[in-house]
Amino acid sequence: MATLQDIGVSAFINILGAFAFLLAFALLRIQPINDRVYFPKWYISGGRSSPGRGGNFVGKFVNLNVKTYFTFLNWMPQALKMTEAEIIDHAGLDSAVFLRIYTLGLKIFVPITILALLILIPVNVSSGTLFFLRKELVMSDIDKLSISNVRPQSIRQVYASAYEEKRKIMIMFFIHIALEYAFTTWICFMLYKEYDHVASMRLRFLASKRRRAEQFTVVVRNVPHVSGRSAVDSVEQFFQTNHPNTYLCQQAVYNANTFAKLVRKRDRLQNWLDYNQLKFERHPDKRPTQNKGFLGLWGERVDSIEYYRQQMKHLEKNMALERQKILKDSKSILPVSFVSFNSRWGAAVCAQTQQSKNPTLWLTNWAPEPRDIYWRNLAIPFMSLTVRKLIISVSVFALVFFYMIPIAFVQSLANLEGLEKVAPFLRPVIELKFIKSFLQGFLPGLALKIFLYILPTVLVIMSKIEGFIAHSTLERRAAAKYYYFMLVNVFLGSIIAGTAFEQLDAFLHQSPTQIPRTIGVSIPMKATFFITYIMIDGWAGIAGEILRLKPLIIFHLKNMFLVKTERDKERAMDPGSVDFPETLPSLQLYFLLGIVYAVVTPILLPFVLVFFAFAYLVYRHQIVNVYNQKYESAAAFWPHVHSRIIASLLISQLLLLGLLSTKKAANSTPLLVILPILTLYFHKYCKSRFEPAFRKYPLEEAMAKDLNDRTTESDLNLKAYLADAYLHPIFRSFEEEELVEVKVEKNKPQPASDRTSELSSPSPPHQANHPSSPPHYVYHPSSPPQHVYNPSSPSHYAYHYENDIYHPPSPPHYAYHYENEP
Amino acid sequence: MATLQDIGVSAFINILGAFAFLLAFALLRIQPINDRVYFPKWYISGGRSSPGRGGNFVGKFVNLNVKTYFTFLNWMPQALKMTEAEIIDHAGLDSAVFLRIYTLGLKIFVPITILALLILIPVNVSSGTLFFLRKELVMSDIDKLSISNVRPQSIRQVYASAYEEKRKIMIMFFIHIALEYAFTTWICFMLYKEYDHVASMRLRFLASKRRRAEQFTVVVRNVPHVSGRSAVDSVEQFFQTNHPNTYLCQQAVYNANTFAKLVRKRDRLQNWLDYNQLKFERHPDKRPTQNKGFLGLWGERVDSIEYYRQQMKHLEKNMALERQKILKDSKSILPVSFVSFNSRWGAAVCAQTQQSKNPTLWLTNWAPEPRDIYWRNLAIPFMSLTVRKLIISVSVFALVFFYMIPIAFVQSLANLEGLEKVAPFLRPVIELKFIKSFLQGFLPGLALKIFLYILPTVLVIMSKIEGFIAHSTLERRAAAKYYYFMLVNVFLGSIIAGTAFEQLDAFLHQSPTQIPRTIGVSIPMKATFFITYIMIDGWAGIAGEILRLKPLIIFHLKNMFLVKTERDKERAMDPGSVDFPETLPSLQLYFLLGIVYAVVTPILLPFVLVFFAFAYLVYRHQIVNVYNQKYESAAAFWPHVHSRIIASLLISQLLLLGLLSTKKAANSTPLLVILPILTLYFHKYCKSRFEPAFRKYPLEEAMAKDLNDRTTESDLNLKAYLADAYLHPIFRSFEEEELVEVKVEKNKPQPASDRTSELSSPSPPHQANHPSSPPHYVYHPSSPPQHVYNPSSPSHYAYHYENDIYHPPSPPHYAYHYENEP
Repeated sequence: MATLQDIGVSAFINILGAFAFLLAFALLRIQPINDRVYFPKWYISGGRSSPGRGGNFVGKFVNLNVKTYFTFLNWMPQALKMTEAEIIDHAGLDSAVFLRIYTLGLKIFVPITILALLILIPVNVSSGTLFFLRKELVMSDIDKLSISNVRPQSIRQVYASAYEEKRKIMIMFFIHIALEYAFTTWICFMLYKEYDHVASMRLRFLASKRRRAEQFTVVVRNVPHVSGRSAVDSVEQFFQTNHPNTYLCQQAVYNANTFAKLVRKRDRLQNWLDYNQLKFERHPDKRPTQNKGFLGLWGERVDSIEYYRQQMKHLEKNMALERQKILKDSKSILPVSFVSFNSRWGAAVCAQTQQSKNPTLWLTNWAPEPRDIYWRNLAIPFMSLTVRKLIISVSVFALVFFYMIPIAFVQSLANLEGLEKVAPFLRPVIELKFIKSFLQGFLPGLALKIFLYILPTVLVIMSKIEGFIAHSTLERRAAAKYYYFMLVNVFLGSIIAGTAFEQLDAFLHQSPTQIPRTIGVSIPMKATFFITYIMIDGWAGIAGEILRLKPLIIFHLKNMFLVKTERDKERAMDPGSVDFPETLPSLQLYFLLGIVYAVVTPILLPFVLVFFAFAYLVYRHQIVNVYNQKYESAAAFWPHVHSRIIASLLISQLLLLGLLSTKKAANSTPLLVILPILTLYFHKYCKSRFEPAFRKYPLEEAMAKDLNDRTTESDLNLKAYLADAYLHPIFRSFEEEELVEVKVEKNKPQPASDRTSELSSPSPPHQANHPSSPPHYVYHPSSPPQHVYNPSSPSHYAYHYENDIYHPPSPPHYAYHYENEP
Repeated sequence: MATLQDIGVSAFINILGAFAFLLAFALLRIQPINDRVYFPKWYISGGRSSPGRGGNFVGKFVNLNVKTYFTFLNWMPQALKMTEAEIIDHAGLDSAVFLRIYTLGLKIFVPITILALLILIPVNVSSGTLFFLRKELVMSDIDKLSISNVRPQSIRQVYASAYEEKRKIMIMFFIHIALEYAFTTWICFMLYKEYDHVASMRLRFLASKRRRAEQFTVVVRNVPHVSGRSAVDSVEQFFQTNHPNTYLCQQAVYNANTFAKLVRKRDRLQNWLDYNQLKFERHPDKRPTQNKGFLGLWGERVDSIEYYRQQMKHLEKNMALERQKILKDSKSILPVSFVSFNSRWGAAVCAQTQQSKNPTLWLTNWAPEPRDIYWRNLAIPFMSLTVRKLIISVSVFALVFFYMIPIAFVQSLANLEGLEKVAPFLRPVIELKFIKSFLQGFLPGLALKIFLYILPTVLVIMSKIEGFIAHSTLERRAAAKYYYFMLVNVFLGSIIAGTAFEQLDAFLHQSPTQIPRTIGVSIPMKATFFITYIMIDGWAGIAGEILRLKPLIIFHLKNMFLVKTERDKERAMDPGSVDFPETLPSLQLYFLLGIVYAVVTPILLPFVLVFFAFAYLVYRHQIVNVYNQKYESAAAFWPHVHSRIIASLLISQLLLLGLLSTKKAANSTPLLVILPILTLYFHKYCKSRFEPAFRKYPLEEAMAKDLNDRTTESDLNLKAYLADAYLHPIFRSFEEEELVEVKVEKNKPQPASDRTSELSSPSPPHQANHPSSPPHYVYHPSSPPQHVYNPSSPSHYAYHYENDIYHPPSPPHYAYHYENEP
């Protein structure tokens, strides 16, 4: 059992670590050379284009202004300056709502902490064998402050006034129960308010968004295969028949996974080429050479630049062939399609209704944002999805329950008595006072943290195998898996492993009422472990987050070897984003710890509070200055956050029930049984009241936006607007590359993204407002006539390709595209 | 423990009872006077108008043809004559699919019975202490044929070849497990085929149905209250905005519950008036008189006919006032509306999508058939529904779990040892051989049956309180409740109560793996009880069903006292309908029994088979000749049937697992654990594959029907067609009454129902094909202009009313309606 002193050591180490990180961050962030690491968001949003401080050469890399070094915490007030509306504007709703989880934590736990510390600690202390607070005793055992100190009633009362004493203890238990009621009510109240607020934020955000492709588009999966007819034709015919007034156009999805591989390979080669060219530019006297063989270790020595150019050329030939194959082969058209409608109403109707008599065919759903789509999974045959889900759920179960074994092993090592048994020769070292404290305070949490470090990656891969087609869903599902993992392994695992890990198997043979009792009893004893955990994971971990050590190093490496142009520099930036699969479950774990220990060992609460406040500041800073969200799901994760906090409440109630029943306060259990029922009912109510706002798109809303659009910009050609929205990114990025090369040659500075949108905006008048005129399902002026299915957008790029790579680039052709430029 | 002899006695009694019922039925059904009791369906469908046999006076009442008395079972082949397609035509899909449950039972259990009897009985018998089948021993204990006879492995093998013996027993257990696998596979296969078939039957049925109001109509609940605007206006505006192309018209719903009470009171008075008039006609010399006071026991003596006429007049005045109040008071318009669309597509879209930002407002759902609606519940405020549901679910739980106490008490009485303890003075009587057999074979089942008799009524009332708005849903929910009741009380209750009823409370303190073990062990011992139960409930009960004793008596009483005209005679018929809330759960109980005992005590299977075959014949006869379904839900109950058979499978697997684990064949459990997982997976697959066909209406289907309609009858005025479809039946029946009175006076024989449809079919051309022209939201030529909300249909009847009752009937007015008649 860790003493207060152990915790003190641990706290000291962690606070020291956190401060070191913060100090390093404060020093590094004001160096202009790191500007792109610590403020990438501003570069992306266009708020900054160069560090722009200091005139001289050195000033470009090192901050010489001494004054700024003294205010090393001034990022904190800066981070708080932005209002929520500005954050939504700046970083999207996902980020803004993510921050609200931390403020929700503060809102929930500040009053609870105050109340618990004011009421429970005196109660717990006074009901112990010690009636007055003596410093040394409290210092030596944190348990004195917890519910453990409330004596079980079964212990024979040796006092003269035994009855009086018993009554007093009863009252003390009732104080705990009353507080559990008060806390539950308060948490539910805050949750309700927050859900309400987030739901209305979401609806307002969706309503205020300007026109976006995904508002008009539905993804259709499992298009049935009709022999002698391509999927494109089937889709065309089906939606023209069944949505005659609203159907606009479709975009076929190609199985471009092999092509994507080639693209990745080309990117790698391009990197090597850049590296060698840069090397040559810097030392023009020496042309870089290398060996041709495996890993450049042997083989013929060749000129590197020439070699990579050759390789690139060869690869690009392959890519051209592959692309031709994709576009010509009807088999590479997947039975998936992005179907667009001429109104949001039409899309909302199609997304929410059943299309076909066979409910496994023609499955419609809202299309995710184009940048949110995980293209690779669109190629998964729909029927294999159920099998994949089954396999993954079995493996998650295995992972969650058998991962526990190594953790328990490490923890039994970290438990010093166990360690001494395993390695008796270490005893002299371990017995040293300081090392002992260090090990006991630091090791268990650290071991756990290392285990948890590799996990999110594994879980994201598992979710990818499961076959979700949007990054956002994928991350949410990974987060769910991670949460189960944390719940079983970090929370339950830590509680039980210490006392009786082997009991888990025995649980099956225990009565259902025995389980919460077993866990409940161990809970107060594990408070010190969790305090350590909060300090390592919560405090030091968050401070590490703001330092961004990994992106910092990678940026400087890239800067050194690859960066040629300003644009390369931009690409070398790795702003990152909020890592939902990892942060959401950890956050939920803190909620769980706070709620469970609020009544049992309230001394844990201040640690949780500090975490919430500190993490709030750090993430606010990161969201304002660093992160660039890859997609926008409009807070689609909130229902999960809500329901997991509810789950934490239920767990805390069950465990308190178990704990009190061992304290022989069994007559208080009926009081506590009502609480979970009421909590569940509250959850059900919230679900029916708010969740549809996150899952469906009301027709009222869709119609209002449609009408608004029609009055404000009635002359818009929606078809042209939607034409390329859901083009496979491979074709898109390829085009970008091509254009960039042309640009470099032509020295015409024009950002590629702007051009893309202009490419698709002009449209001939005879196509406008003519929803039911398809053979050409996507119009594009430069599509060549020789393709069978006329998938004009991809072939458009193929056209570029043929003109640009096989033949020398032909500027007049591009001039055609640029003719709209000012 | 009941012996085979007890079962023999019970079987004898029950078969005797069943034969008595069948004989009585055979005699009664061929009497012309009972023709309307045993063949009402033919009267309703117009296939018969009078018994039409025998020329003379006596022949009208008694069948004098002696020949027909000898063929008393000839209803059986007659019942089988109709094909399934004819039955669908004749009685609807619900009835046809209901019969398929019985054939499904036969299809499932015939091969299982054969296999089980061929394989398991020899195995069970041979593995007992007796290796050869000796008649007297088998006769004395039915358990010899069950799995109980397979000896547990723990019993020390006293044989020399102990190992050989053990191996043999192992093989025998594996035979049981293999058979469980085989049976599960077979059942799942049959279930899949059947689900597929029923789903396609449903879709075909829906597709072949001619135009019906419910295909175009959606019920909208929880219309928000906007001050200064009526619900009618809100609905109008909302749907014109959000479904501008498809919205056609709406029908407001009035809170006519008090009016309905008055109508019922009037019907009662009318009956008394008819009775007295008839009495007077038969004895014209003596005018019937009665006392005015309470129940006619005291008070002033008055002329009965005059008295009831007075009362009627007074009541009708009240009714007129009440109706005026309903129509004029905007508060009596409920926040519920039946909204109709100009196409099935439009209705399908509206029913499946979310309308409002606030997901608890504007809730849309398919409207049930007009005759399926339970009008009274439309008046329940939507917000009170959640509370009602909570209350009802708590009371169902209480009912299910505490109803067990009286049953257990009665069964412990029926248990003779218990009875002797309670009433020792009965011992001499009980000890008599025959009485003992009778009591043990008959009482337990009978006691249960009586308990179960009053239950469906209670459950239907509970479902009504829960607030469902369709009779079909209501009956399905009542059936679900009844099923839980049967499962817990009949199945589990009977199994546990006999051995250890008190254990149920102890279950909470048992380990989860212990529960199936406890139950599993008792299962083979209860086989005799369930055989008795099947004979009483299944055999004799079904034979009682065909006799229709209650309707027979009531019909003859009514015939004696109330029937004046041919039409009265028609109304005195009570064809009844398949009583889903009761028959479905009992059916599912037989499936459960058959599946659970298939491996354990296969001797029970023939009894189940006889039940299925016999019940199939009886219900087929009843559906062809008797029942008249009140509504048509197009087999909406099938998913419940399917999932409950799956539940039975799971229960049987769990119990077998528990049973085998007590036989110390624990090493076989891994084999059995896979089975429930596979079964659940099968269920999930079926659910996603077939269930949407029962819950949603695919747009493809809707569009196809719409297009078909448009080509075949493009000139139809849909608005006029839908105008009165969802009128409150009170107004409808009232109108009918009025028309009938007029008809009687005019002696113009025209069935009222035909006229109703004709009343609403003519429509002026300027309204046709003009969907977006509402101030008048329901068009009707004769609607008076003075009403504020212009709810023209009800006021139409009010108009009749004013013209017909307060003033003398004005034939020219009716002539206007009849002008379209041939």
